[in-house]
Amino acid sequence: MSDLLWQKPGVTVDSGIQAFLAGDDVILDREFFQHDIVASRAHAQGLQRIGVLSADELVVLERELATLAEDFRSGAFVLDETFEDGHSAIEARLTERLGDTGRRIHTGRSRNDQVLVATRLWLKEKLERVQALCREVATVALDRAGAEQGIPMPGYTHLQRAVVSSVGMWWAGWAEAFIDNARRAADTLAWVDANPLGTAAGYGVNLPLARDHATQALGFGRLQVSPLYAQLSRGKFELAALEALNSAMLDLRRLAWDLSLFTSAEFGFVRLPSQYTTGSSIMPNKRNPDVVELMRGTYASVAAARTEIEHLLSLPGGYHRDLQITKGALFHGFGKGLGALSLLPDLLRNLDWNSERMQAALEPSMYATDLAVDLAKQGMPFRDAYKQAADPARWSAGDPQESLAARTSPGGAGDLRLKDLRDRLGG
Amino acid sequence: MSDLLWQKPGVTVDSGIQAFLAGDDVILDREFFQHDIVASRAHAQGLQRIGVLSADELVVLERELATLAEDFRSGAFVLDETFEDGHSAIEARLTERLGDTGRRIHTGRSRNDQVLVATRLWLKEKLERVQALCREVATVALDRAGAEQGIPMPGYTHLQRAVVSSVGMWWAGWAEAFIDNARRAADTLAWVDANPLGTAAGYGVNLPLARDHATQALGFGRLQVSPLYAQLSRGKFELAALEALNSAMLDLRRLAWDLSLFTSAEFGFVRLPSQYTTGSSIMPNKRNPDVVELMRGTYASVAAARTEIEHLLSLPGGYHRDLQITKGALFHGFGKGLGALSLLPDLLRNLDWNSERMQAALEPSMYATDLAVDLAKQGMPFRDAYKQAADPARWSAGDPQESLAARTSPGGAGDLRLKDLRDRLGG
Amino acid sequence: MSDLLWQKPGVTVDSGIQAFLAGDDVILDREFFQHDIVASRAHAQGLQRIGVLSADELVVLERELATLAEDFRSGAFVLDETFEDGHSAIEARLTERLGDTGRRIHTGRSRNDQVLVATRLWLKEKLERVQALCREVATVALDRAGAEQGIPMPGYTHLQRAVVSSVGMWWAGWAEAFIDNARRAADTLAWVDANPLGTAAGYGVNLPLARDHATQALGFGRLQVSPLYAQLSRGKFELAALEALNSAMLDLRRLAWDLSLFTSAEFGFVRLPSQYTTGSSIMPNKRNPDVVELMRGTYASVAAARTEIEHLLSLPGGYHRDLQITKGALFHGFGKGLGALSLLPDLLRNLDWNSERMQAALEPSMYATDLAVDLAKQGMPFRDAYKQAADPARWSAGDPQESLAARTSPGGAGDLRLKDLRDRLGG
Amino acid sequence: MSDLLWQKPGVTVDSGIQAFLAGDDVILDREFFQHDIVASRAHAQGLQRIGVLSADELVVLERELATLAEDFRSGAFVLDETFEDGHSAIEARLTERLGDTGRRIHTGRSRNDQVLVATRLWLKEKLERVQALCREVATVALDRAGAEQGIPMPGYTHLQRAVVSSVGMWWAGWAEAFIDNARRAADTLAWVDANPLGTAAGYGVNLPLARDHATQALGFGRLQVSPLYAQLSRGKFELAALEALNSAMLDLRRLAWDLSLFTSAEFGFVRLPSQYTTGSSIMPNKRNPDVVELMRGTYASVAAARTEIEHLLSLPGGYHRDLQITKGALFHGFGKGLGALSLLPDLLRNLDWNSERMQAALEPSMYATDLAVDLAKQGMPFRDAYKQAADPARWSAGDPQESLAARTSPGGAGDLRLKDLRDRLGG
Repeated sequence: MSDLLWQKPGVTVDSGIQAFLAGDDVILDREFFQHDIVASRAHAQGLQRIGVLSADELVVLERELATLAEDFRSGAFVLDETFEDGHSAIEARLTERLGDTGRRIHTGRSRNDQVLVATRLWLKEKLERVQALCREVATVALDRAGAEQGIPMPGYTHLQRAVVSSVGMWWAGWAEAFIDNARRAADTLAWVDANPLGTAAGYGVNLPLARDHATQALGFGRLQVSPLYAQLSRGKFELAALEALNSAMLDLRRLAWDLSLFTSAEFGFVRLPSQYTTGSSIMPNKRNPDVVELMRGTYASVAAARTEIEHLLSLPGGYHRDLQITKGALFHGFGKGLGALSLLPDLLRNLDWNSERMQAALEPSMYATDLAVDLAKQGMPFRDAYKQAADPARWSAGDPQESLAARTSPGGAGDLRLKDLRDRLGG
Repeated sequence: MSDLLWQKPGVTVDSGIQAFLAGDDVILDREFFQHDIVASRAHAQGLQRIGVLSADELVVLERELATLAEDFRSGAFVLDETFEDGHSAIEARLTERLGDTGRRIHTGRSRNDQVLVATRLWLKEKLERVQALCREVATVALDRAGAEQGIPMPGYTHLQRAVVSSVGMWWAGWAEAFIDNARRAADTLAWVDANPLGTAAGYGVNLPLARDHATQALGFGRLQVSPLYAQLSRGKFELAALEALNSAMLDLRRLAWDLSLFTSAEFGFVRLPSQYTTGSSIMPNKRNPDVVELMRGTYASVAAARTEIEHLLSLPGGYHRDLQITKGALFHGFGKGLGALSLLPDLLRNLDWNSERMQAALEPSMYATDLAVDLAKQGMPFRDAYKQAADPARWSAGDPQESLAARTSPGGAGDLRLKDLRDRLGG
Repeated sequence: MSDLLWQKPGVTVDSGIQAFLAGDDVILDREFFQHDIVASRAHAQGLQRIGVLSADELVVLERELATLAEDFRSGAFVLDETFEDGHSAIEARLTERLGDTGRRIHTGRSRNDQVLVATRLWLKEKLERVQALCREVATVALDRAGAEQGIPMPGYTHLQRAVVSSVGMWWAGWAEAFIDNARRAADTLAWVDANPLGTAAGYGVNLPLARDHATQALGFGRLQVSPLYAQLSRGKFELAALEALNSAMLDLRRLAWDLSLFTSAEFGFVRLPSQYTTGSSIMPNKRNPDVVELMRGTYASVAAARTEIEHLLSLPGGYHRDLQITKGALFHGFGKGLGALSLLPDLLRNLDWNSERMQAALEPSMYATDLAVDLAKQGMPFRDAYKQAADPARWSAGDPQESLAARTSPGGAGDLRLKDLRDRLGG
Repeated sequence: MSDLLWQKPGVTVDSGIQAFLAGDDVILDREFFQHDIVASRAHAQGLQRIGVLSADELVVLERELATLAEDFRSGAFVLDETFEDGHSAIEARLTERLGDTGRRIHTGRSRNDQVLVATRLWLKEKLERVQALCREVATVALDRAGAEQGIPMPGYTHLQRAVVSSVGMWWAGWAEAFIDNARRAADTLAWVDANPLGTAAGYGVNLPLARDHATQALGFGRLQVSPLYAQLSRGKFELAALEALNSAMLDLRRLAWDLSLFTSAEFGFVRLPSQYTTGSSIMPNKRNPDVVELMRGTYASVAAARTEIEHLLSLPGGYHRDLQITKGALFHGFGKGLGALSLLPDLLRNLDWNSERMQAALEPSMYATDLAVDLAKQGMPFRDAYKQAADPARWSAGDPQESLAARTSPGGAGDLRLKDLRDRLGG
């Protein structure tokens, strides 16, 4: 590791301890190195505005930051274990190339707010991606709901056959779910959209930093005013972002469960394109829906990330090194969660229903509830109608299309209200 | 237990199994019995609008529901183990008092949407309470931040003395934290503000239920359109509500940690009124800050509630009995969380700072960062200034008031921007 | 609440704060009131051995403790909110009845070690119960494995039909699972079997307490030597006990999942006696396997208890009030977990297989693996045999009994080794 | 990726899906590649014993496996993304080098039991390491407890000064904690010490595999008999191992908390060698105890691993692809946990107490409990003695050495019973 910029002289360094301290920080920092560069530029602009940097110094700093960004992108600059972390790598590079001008970049800034602002920008980007993917899922679901409203499908409660349902109702359910998930991602994005740059190590600094400029330059919705709160928000905002992602994961887990059942031989409602399945090393006959199962399992990875962050936050106010562990958790959660979510739209587009199997699963008993309600409509108290309709002698195979058409409670197969959902999804 | 309304004839009942099935449902149902009554009234109104009930029947149903609400409030009606649950208790009462009219109330409704709507109304109430309490905490913190800006206090990172801070900065941090927590509660309230009544068992019903009327009558912001999504939202919305509560709990845990340290003899920064402390059974000398510790520990109870709900949601779509377990978790989480949060405003109002102890904790080294920045202001590259200021020979006792006044980065002690925070808190 | 024994004079008491401090401690304390009495007797015996109590005083204390135990059992003594908690209730009663002799009982004891020892005794009792129930489940499973080895059943991986399996193999799997679970409960019981009584508030006391006597009198396996460790073990031992319970819950959750699928119309492999099912409030045709679903869901409650305790333990050494919250979590976890587990043996005894449906689910492709291995046995490299057996043209309906009989890998249907499992289960 | 050994012809491969399926399996598999080789050798030996392989074939397979192990160790063979996973890499290599003989290695084996046995061997190795480290920690603590029994130290409850304690008592507490943790690791190791090799995909195989030989050859304590249970144990055993590790983590977290407080300026009880501290990027005056904080935070990473595995196990019996995600969780948990634990013995050896600061923190009130007990020894009922000793007028500075010497309750400073603890720790 390169000489630490802030290393005290005369300190013996134990390599085991150094490795423990470093963890995989540098590798993780690749994830938001570009965000750090962007924020460093805004910080430099601010320093020029308050006279700490000259206009010329700002020019060369901005140029060198742009070069570094390009070098990182092209692979000419590699962020590796020779650096303590990404934050010090930027300062080291600027110092190496620009001498004293580089040594000025950290004026009025701490690694604390540097990490905070880079992470914040990264979080916003990820939440936008969650929102976009949820919208895409909802769009696919709405389209297929409209196209496939007429296909009957058994409706279950307790995994027991209950009433006649439809493929259109199934799709509409996921559509509304992902509309809500998109909204939650948007709400959370707005909630975390606060600029922590300029709070230093949690107590501000004796310079009139141009924080309002940085807020605007970086596209933040508001200033995170209090330096102490900037520290308190570390982990808290990350957790909120993971919770928003998790909202989508909750539904993805249940959707994947449906597909896992539906692709079993016993249900047989759905066929998956072969690229979503894999073989077995010992059983020549197998085609397994691994993609669907890994999607279901992804919930666990996002949950793990939340657990990791939560446990770290049992601390007094102020910065503590424990908080650095949040970084790996964040990448794990969003990495796995977005990985699964990004495959979902195509998977949904490619689902192939087996209408015959679904039709065959509709039993006479599944019309009993319709019968009870019909009797009630004709004037019989519902509780009496229920008892009559409970008599298997009264059950007979109905017409699923008729049953669906009569399901006129708003949201039911006879009144899906897809337009309302489409309106909510908006532009 | 009374005869179940939907019990099949000839089924042997094992008391151990019955007890397992019942759990403590009836006791828990007391929590939202009133919400169930309110929703039942809206359902009855809807049935009348579509001709299932006559105007006269609606009148007697509404009257009897009002009586039941009053009887429950007064204790004349006790919801106990003689009922299967609160939902069937209402139908049983209406049937007992009103005969056939009572037997009509459940037309087009399932216990599924009945539970959903009652829980949803309860959730909204609780989130409003979270929001109000967070606003109250923020108000206290802003008031004290304004009043106590001039009191110096050591600022810590890693629990090590770092720089001079102020009581005003400390309060401002918590103020901004709870402003954000209030906003999160409000966002979540809006997010869950969807009416599930009229979705029956998850597949709608063959009646044109007046769902838009019920949405309006119950004060919901929107219709939860899809019956399948209504089922998918069970647990999902509860979890989101607990996460919003948890946002406040995260800060409460850290605030309680601060107070736990500050009331130790070693720090000695804060004195608590005696009603917040307790004695020991063996040590005559002790006064322990139990309230603060239980506040800190409350995080665990809210976390437990989230865990319980999360694990229940690994299911295919549709209703499953597992979901009923969410109810106890919800009450546990909100019961404990709101219990702690509701004591917080008064606790904060009553904190008594020991300025002398805080002043005594300010060491010469804590001015070194100011010094480094001052050198940088005068033109020395920051990294060089940092090295100079790292020399203990250059440290000397400074004037804390001067240090605070010079901390002019926005949000710093010299520019607290309390007005901006007050504006965010709004009316 | 009665006057606190250790209340300081002149302290104003706020009823909201008091309620928060009390929580539901007294109610929870009913759970281990008897254990507290037993431990109090051992403590009194110890005090007599070191001369703090006279022989006569010991006699009356033991008599009065026995009376209290009996009164509690009969309901003549009710532990309610008039007491601060169960621990002080005992001292209050002894003082009320025995005057100065009662006022001596707490010599050399703190509520800390009083709670610890009562909880420890309770934990041991619960772990014994877990062990016994796991053994009972294993016994049922072994019996049925032996009786039903000849019934073919489809074997699944990824919920896809894989190879022919048998009911005997299914039972043997659960048998071995619960043998291991019983062993884990036993290991954990031995691990927590350490006596904390006599450690006072975590620092011992200036009396040569007869701790070895108490250890023996209370049936503990060893002395918990260090008073500081006694405090550190609070929550840690509770967590270990819940983890042992959870080991059984992991398997119960998967077993319940199997049954949830097997009782669906699509699988149809199992029929449950009607007392394990319930009806629907709106759908007259439904019989739902609620017991199985609640068993599956119970995992969540045990998980919640573990989460609650874990979060409480982020503390420095020594006692903190946060730790008291562990009590409710413990009762929740063991209450729900043992509730579900205790119904399991009977449920398993009453499972009714539908052999025809299982037979019908055996497809030609499920013999492909046998074929590949057969080809390999005859000398073809397995990877080539695999390719040949992957050709659907080579698949044909086999004889499941032959397939099972040939499954001679130890543990396979042709060599179940039930005797080995029975030997492990032991007496 | 190389051609999959079991890939079906004609399947289109989507690179995004392939990447999702592969995850970082190959990288993770490096961790137990050697264990897989060892188990593959035992499997080959077994195949020779039942006649599937000739003696000559076994010789070349064993030789080639040894070469592969050596090539992997030396870096001549790199396990990278060109392979699907480590398991197929072994078969591919044997096939490439040995032709038909290599194509026989997978006879009677599935990737399922191959993964299980490699993971199991890895788990055993890790649990041995946990045990060894816990024993080392306990040894250091016992040694220092013996050497430093005479140094007084304040004893806290609720972070409030309570009674006089000693450095010896502090060390003895951690010693007993880690003796228990070592035992738990050993118990868990014995519990998971069951051989799953030979269970194939969860249903055994139509070959009389020499499972008893493999059990012995691989050093397992017992055969995991049931193939279905082998599948059920995936994740369950991993979780148990992480829970055993977590037992040590619980104590490490509290120990690190103690050190975090003790190294604060306010407590000042402990000095850490400089290699355990780091500087700040902005504050020239800081030396922060980062190592201690990261140790405390490591709990979160182990907790995350447990959460991840737990959530994956909500499945019916049999293998599901979700289970593969357990692998990354396992490495994360043990990687971080052992990383922290392995630094602990040296950290403890190097702790430097500041006796003066501890002495200075002993207040007169801290002798009040001794006084109350002394009065009780002289015949006053304890509850009366307590009241007298609660009077501050009676408090006076005592002699800490006398107080410690009189603390003769077993485990107290006057009777530490270190020999008993040393005996428990054993050889």
